[in-house]
Amino acid sequence: MAIIEDLKNALGADAVLTGAQIGERHRSDASLTGRVLPIAVLRPRSVEEVSAALRICHAHGQPVVPQGGMTGLAGGANARGGEVAISLEHLAGIEEIDAAAGTITVKAGTVLEVAQRAAEDAGLLLPVDLGARGSCQIGGNLSTNAGGVRVIRHGVTRDNVLGLEVVLADGTVLSMLNKMTKNNTGYDLRQFFIGAEGTLGIITRAVLKLKPLPAARNTALAALESYEAVVALLQKAQRDLVALSAFEAMWQAFVRFNTEASGIKLFDADHLFLVIIEEDGDGSDAARERFEAFLGDALEDGLIVDALVAQSEKEARNFWTVREAHDMDRLLPSLINLDVSLPIGEIGRFAETCEAALLERFPAAHVSFFGHIGDSNVHIAVSVGDASEQDLHAVDEIVYDLVQAHRGSISAEHGIGTLKRAHLGCSRSPEELETMRRIKQALDPKGILNPGKVL
Amino acid sequence: MAIIEDLKNALGADAVLTGAQIGERHRSDASLTGRVLPIAVLRPRSVEEVSAALRICHAHGQPVVPQGGMTGLAGGANARGGEVAISLEHLAGIEEIDAAAGTITVKAGTVLEVAQRAAEDAGLLLPVDLGARGSCQIGGNLSTNAGGVRVIRHGVTRDNVLGLEVVLADGTVLSMLNKMTKNNTGYDLRQFFIGAEGTLGIITRAVLKLKPLPAARNTALAALESYEAVVALLQKAQRDLVALSAFEAMWQAFVRFNTEASGIKLFDADHLFLVIIEEDGDGSDAARERFEAFLGDALEDGLIVDALVAQSEKEARNFWTVREAHDMDRLLPSLINLDVSLPIGEIGRFAETCEAALLERFPAAHVSFFGHIGDSNVHIAVSVGDASEQDLHAVDEIVYDLVQAHRGSISAEHGIGTLKRAHLGCSRSPEELETMRRIKQALDPKGILNPGKVL
Repeated sequence: MAIIEDLKNALGADAVLTGAQIGERHRSDASLTGRVLPIAVLRPRSVEEVSAALRICHAHGQPVVPQGGMTGLAGGANARGGEVAISLEHLAGIEEIDAAAGTITVKAGTVLEVAQRAAEDAGLLLPVDLGARGSCQIGGNLSTNAGGVRVIRHGVTRDNVLGLEVVLADGTVLSMLNKMTKNNTGYDLRQFFIGAEGTLGIITRAVLKLKPLPAARNTALAALESYEAVVALLQKAQRDLVALSAFEAMWQAFVRFNTEASGIKLFDADHLFLVIIEEDGDGSDAARERFEAFLGDALEDGLIVDALVAQSEKEARNFWTVREAHDMDRLLPSLINLDVSLPIGEIGRFAETCEAALLERFPAAHVSFFGHIGDSNVHIAVSVGDASEQDLHAVDEIVYDLVQAHRGSISAEHGIGTLKRAHLGCSRSPEELETMRRIKQALDPKGILNPGKVL
Repeated sequence: MAIIEDLKNALGADAVLTGAQIGERHRSDASLTGRVLPIAVLRPRSVEEVSAALRICHAHGQPVVPQGGMTGLAGGANARGGEVAISLEHLAGIEEIDAAAGTITVKAGTVLEVAQRAAEDAGLLLPVDLGARGSCQIGGNLSTNAGGVRVIRHGVTRDNVLGLEVVLADGTVLSMLNKMTKNNTGYDLRQFFIGAEGTLGIITRAVLKLKPLPAARNTALAALESYEAVVALLQKAQRDLVALSAFEAMWQAFVRFNTEASGIKLFDADHLFLVIIEEDGDGSDAARERFEAFLGDALEDGLIVDALVAQSEKEARNFWTVREAHDMDRLLPSLINLDVSLPIGEIGRFAETCEAALLERFPAAHVSFFGHIGDSNVHIAVSVGDASEQDLHAVDEIVYDLVQAHRGSISAEHGIGTLKRAHLGCSRSPEELETMRRIKQALDPKGILNPGKVL
């Protein structure tokens, strides 16, 4: 094919994988197994090569799928037939840590954990953090506006981006590697590409905010008997714990399943809700006492009925092991993990209605709720046994219709990709969708960037 | 004119001011004195009326200028000849405070201070705050992505917006009154309109984040002898003061001028830099002791050479009175207040070079520096006496060329409007400007929204 030759000439033959090389790559990399093969995989080493590649693809009207660590949960980085994949894996590395500005400049293909470690080595914290840190890449974190467990203190990925370098569909490079908190010089183009899942441009570099590295962390597990108490505890925590860094709620069915599966014992009694509360601290006795006083107050006020303060790293780890639910995937057939958000006060009622609706349709199903309540984000674990396509669709419909009724979001942190595309109208109006299409048309008139995703 | 009749029919005659009514309005309202008169001033009372007005203007190809509290510093809300002004003043009021979600829903014409008070009455803090709070409106705060003095703790206005309702140029209403922290359902259209200075749509309502109301505040004034020490103190403050809520630096010439003008005595000796440090706190003795220990450490380490801890509200007020420099405008002829940002570590060198360059061109000028150093934002007060247009232009050129050389921003928090439009290229590349034009063309193809502003 002429385009492959053009790409090889521009990037060098070793940066362009084709045919058997791609088959081999897909066999040997577990994250790629079973996915559709692209016609070529490009591995550019510089922004100039990304630009050259897109210029060529644009001229040929060749659809392109940008790929990072392939850890996304919505299918946004999967190739469709006939597409060229652009993998950012060779465009990786830390370019600079500026301690005075509080910034790290990284290439898009850098694995998140590599960037986190570099920041730590400089005595600083890169607040973007999520379970897939060991293999997800910064470019993917930005393109999906990743959430995670530290959002309550540091915001979503978008809130941690100062500068961005992006290549547009036609190869134009927008170099906006700004390091300043304040910059009001015309449209904030950075925002257009964050969370756009690679449909408006390919992110090649970023300047991210760094924060002071917390010296220590206090962790507690609280037991509560109503969702109203969970909300009241959250409000109290936001008021009293100035460095509140996690507030994770687990509903009873979720706790039962995951304590049994992991063999971790938490409380003697069974409670309707458990909440993990963490605060960054300086490791002092005074900080510890304040944290314990907060829990003491909450007990006295009747907000919580019991509490455990982790006495060691290992105990804290145990709370999180239950929350992270590593065994669910293994033990429950065709587990569906739905990721939605709703106004915080409505999540309790939503969960009740949602559970009832799912159990009415699937009486034997496992249905449980957990999530980042402080960020208005709840996850729903559903297993209806060996589910047919139709069953999966029915689960989506039941949940997303209820989310729509509560004016919630059908994707809190996972994005839309291909998996939620049919349901986008549950959270966005026809006018919003039409406006998105106008933006897409303006920035990628030939529609070569990640077609079939999001819109 | 046919369009005026159409508008009167759609909105009611009392919502459409024309002719003598506008003249009277401009005479009686000090914020409008001397500005160009629009051909009509519309005062819609609902989003439906804003939509109807824009539909009519769009059909007629009629240019429109959205107006809020008219406190902007870049001319973004000034009418040009032949324009229709849409004032949001009658679309005002608080719609809801949701304590569980931590949100306030407000109409765009609400005066910022009114919204702040409503939040306080509910025991919560609306973090958006700036000097013009008594007359600026929420819609304007959003359209200019306002900064202010609390950014170091709570972020710029953009960081505090959860939901937005916007009317596009053709009257289409985008109703995105989202209350959730996490929502990744396609392009984040809210971001397009924040900071766009009314050139892409008219904001009619917003959902803003609320935070816990701090019980007390500790305030100190520190004296330092180098910019490097200022940066080191900032880093220490970010590490040690978890609720750091202000870090404002003042250079020597600025302090000299404003202590003399105000008659406020600070330190006995003259120092190269003074810094105001504030931390939100719970008002406890322990919090106060931690704050004082921080200053003690900084003295011992030689970072600061002297410090005052405010012993009363009044003493704290005195520090801020010097910083707010209310007398400068009155005492210095044709005072220019430039608002720029640069990577934090470079601001010291920039200030030295900038002062030298300005004094070389204008040997008798007053030049002084102050600002929100923790946000990378420095203001430059320049008075060259009775300045000609050419002088003003020369000052802009000298400063913005230096900002460009440091890869800084020519507008940290004031926006571009008409005043900085000619200099936009100092901070944005031709590719970025072309991309902005494409977005403008996509959302407002007839170019009726606030023409001649920003781009």
